[in-house]
Amino acid sequence: LLSYGDPYIATTHIELRTRAIEEKIKTKSIHASSSLTSMIGECGLHFYKVGRIATIMSEMKSLTTPYYVIYKNIIEGNHTVLLLEYNQDKDFFLDPKDALMGLVETEKGQKRNVIDSSTYAVVASRVGFANQSIISGKISSLKKMDFGKPPHTVIITGRLHFTESDALKILGDCLDEPTDNSEKTKKISIQMMKKYVPMVREALEEIEPHYKGQKEYQIILENAELYIQDAEKFLEDGQDEVAILSIGYADGLVDALRLAKGFDPKM
Amino acid sequence: LLSYGDPYIATTHIELRTRAIEEKIKTKSIHASSSLTSMIGECGLHFYKVGRIATIMSEMKSLTTPYYVIYKNIIEGNHTVLLLEYNQDKDFFLDPKDALMGLVETEKGQKRNVIDSSTYAVVASRVGFANQSIISGKISSLKKMDFGKPPHTVIITGRLHFTESDALKILGDCLDEPTDNSEKTKKISIQMMKKYVPMVREALEEIEPHYKGQKEYQIILENAELYIQDAEKFLEDGQDEVAILSIGYADGLVDALRLAKGFDPKM
Repeated sequence: LLSYGDPYIATTHIELRTRAIEEKIKTKSIHASSSLTSMIGECGLHFYKVGRIATIMSEMKSLTTPYYVIYKNIIEGNHTVLLLEYNQDKDFFLDPKDALMGLVETEKGQKRNVIDSSTYAVVASRVGFANQSIISGKISSLKKMDFGKPPHTVIITGRLHFTESDALKILGDCLDEPTDNSEKTKKISIQMMKKYVPMVREALEEIEPHYKGQKEYQIILENAELYIQDAEKFLEDGQDEVAILSIGYADGLVDALRLAKGFDPKM
Repeated sequence: LLSYGDPYIATTHIELRTRAIEEKIKTKSIHASSSLTSMIGECGLHFYKVGRIATIMSEMKSLTTPYYVIYKNIIEGNHTVLLLEYNQDKDFFLDPKDALMGLVETEKGQKRNVIDSSTYAVVASRVGFANQSIISGKISSLKKMDFGKPPHTVIITGRLHFTESDALKILGDCLDEPTDNSEKTKKISIQMMKKYVPMVREALEEIEPHYKGQKEYQIILENAELYIQDAEKFLEDGQDEVAILSIGYADGLVDALRLAKGFDPKM
């Protein structure tokens, strides 16, 4: 059995081998270089920054899984390798442009700020062939290109080390200056804190005068202020969950006092 | 220049090549199969479940980075490949047992329930050599083994598909029944909710009788109950951050009423 790349990237081949051994059939495998590792090197990207890989199928519904794989990789600054569906028997290879446009389309439903036409991506085509090509750029630039014959692989880059940006320019063809995709994809916790910290602070300032001189309520107001400050500190420390808990708690303290005086809650 | 495995897994080689091209020196690379892909296949693990890789250095202080790489992989159910420090010139190879014990030691400081002596791990030794060995088991079992000559790689498995468990048994040597490491490593959000939901509910029940018949305070108590329920629903939906915000908010509402009556806050 002869296959492209490293045979055991395809779980079917592992299954075949496991069953063969179970039935006492002798097996021997010769591994080949896989496009998964060689492609990353050919693009000049750092392999230790590659997160979980994903496969893009032509059926649109299936794009939410790769979308969230990219999301989870990108918030950690990791690169995502996207394998594209192919069926050699039917001579079908998914076009990298269709994969990218499908992801941009998926963004419209999921709205996590993961991917849009300004996202930087790499299309690695025919890696290892004489006519190998590595083309990178914003999706808006890539969608105008013809990448030629398959096989193609797409990489959505995460945070780029300067040696990676340099290598992309020298080893391949950059249509645009490489940019950091992780900049615009903020963690949900950071998005929340950006909204809630000023909102709770304002709600607190508005209600404070209504409790002047009432000692037992002063303690509540002071606690609210302290928890807002704690929330900011926890976020800085990377303790996102505790930060959210703290700002939620501060908001609850403030809103209880607002509701008691007939004010609208701010949640 | 001849190197083990795929040359561009080492970022130094990318750097060398980029500089050579910049200085108009012609380069040509022949990729070889990398242990990163072939090893996963030899163990019978699914490559698409492999998360970011990490390197273990012998210096203990450096273990927090790989510890958190494992943590982030494991909560997603992903496998982590750990490359072990080596220096061929000095004939130094980090022993897989030292790497595993170092991680167990790191757990004591970080306390994320990522790794302990019951964690399941795979030690892949001399992959591709005639005397290749794949030994897996709990760390407590692995630490009694002699893995022989280098090179070795360690894999901390995440969630295991049954075909992966079967393959580990058939393709290698299992000292213990393969287990799901992701079971005990719960996300921080889940750990928090487990603590806060019953705590806030109890705090609410305790304070309720003290506000009987006071209409403006009834609204606050009802809101607290609704936000506790919302928090549980959000967690079920996988909206962890909103769940934490909601339980924090409910806690704040309840504690404002507790503080106003001279009760201790429950935070």
